[in-house]
Amino acid sequence: MPSQLPLNREQSRRIDVLAVEHYGMTGLVLMENAGRGAAEIILKLMVDRLPSARPVVICCGKGNNGGDGFVIARHLDNRGVPVRILLFCDPTKLTGDAAANYEIARRAGLPIEPLFENVDTATIAARLADAACVVDALLGTGAMGEPRIPYDVAIAAINAQPAPVIAVDLPSGLDCDTGSPAKHCVRAKHTITFVAAKSGFLVAAAKPYVGEVHAVDIGVPRKLLDDLTVVT
Amino acid sequence: MPSQLPLNREQSRRIDVLAVEHYGMTGLVLMENAGRGAAEIILKLMVDRLPSARPVVICCGKGNNGGDGFVIARHLDNRGVPVRILLFCDPTKLTGDAAANYEIARRAGLPIEPLFENVDTATIAARLADAACVVDALLGTGAMGEPRIPYDVAIAAINAQPAPVIAVDLPSGLDCDTGSPAKHCVRAKHTITFVAAKSGFLVAAAKPYVGEVHAVDIGVPRKLLDDLTVVT
Repeated sequence: MPSQLPLNREQSRRIDVLAVEHYGMTGLVLMENAGRGAAEIILKLMVDRLPSARPVVICCGKGNNGGDGFVIARHLDNRGVPVRILLFCDPTKLTGDAAANYEIARRAGLPIEPLFENVDTATIAARLADAACVVDALLGTGAMGEPRIPYDVAIAAINAQPAPVIAVDLPSGLDCDTGSPAKHCVRAKHTITFVAAKSGFLVAAAKPYVGEVHAVDIGVPRKLLDDLTVVT
Repeated sequence: MPSQLPLNREQSRRIDVLAVEHYGMTGLVLMENAGRGAAEIILKLMVDRLPSARPVVICCGKGNNGGDGFVIARHLDNRGVPVRILLFCDPTKLTGDAAANYEIARRAGLPIEPLFENVDTATIAARLADAACVVDALLGTGAMGEPRIPYDVAIAAINAQPAPVIAVDLPSGLDCDTGSPAKHCVRAKHTITFVAAKSGFLVAAAKPYVGEVHAVDIGVPRKLLDDLTVVT
């Protein structure tokens, strides 16, 4: 598939399903490729600010986008970059590959702070105040509609602080297909997107939220992507 | 662990075991990080020769070193680099993570040629003749002693051909701990090694076989490596 073809929500989902069911890959491997690739781009974007005493603050949601965030944190930590994970859900409610990568990050001793009960913008602002940059790993391409508590307050706090924001896959609150921003939508300086840009990025309304787009290969075979274009 | 501390065979094995048993990582994820990281270094080393009509020929053995080779092939193919996998074992005898990545490569349509019965140097030489470079993914750090059939003839053929040779983790036929070359030992221009250099690389006798060393992070938490130095 030519790298310039944008993907919609359904195609993004199908790529993951086909990679696992037809090609025998595992979700953990896809997540690892995504997080490692994203971490490498973050390092390049931050090169003038490293070494840094101020942490990269990674805001993680409950789903696979949060899972990508845990992988990003581990790879940045391995490169000596200080990280702080803010987890906007009850960690006991994590499942699947996101739960697995949360557990690795926890055992690795990475700083993880759960912020999911009685969370207000001021609390979050305090934990973002010293950020060298903020990574938005709250919501992924599957999300639709208005972000729920506590994502709405997290998004507001992320947008209110001064450090550059880097969105994982797409800015949380942006509709993958229409490019419409929800009432609460992350404004990112950079969006690191998996496989290819999302359809919604092409819409004018999305531009202030998406910023500069960087695509990351998540390791699915080229043949999978070539075949995908044929049937869609 | 300071990146300059060399690893011996036992420490290399223990890193993999601890990553899985203490930190909850999977072998497939470690192999993916290894192969992706190696592919990226190969791309950098080949930058003047790309785009290339001539393939990167990846020589795979039966164990996890071969498994790394299948991952390298997939990532290079994803970047549009022509690849050819030469498999020096019966594919039905592959197991574990190597078997899983063989299967992904096969379903991805990557060219794979089994060379394990009545294999002679001339046959192998013919399949290496058009190589832009040759990747040695035959034997890993666990190997000891003289390489058995068909690895001995594969090594002789790799050494006899003119394209640059890139070894995966260590040159096949080199003892990980002593740096002693077996009677058949790959002479590599570059060695892409996982986590850190191997103890044997420091020995004078090893230098003509190892070439330039490039270390790749395989994603194990920094804490694992820090703790490893304390107990060894």
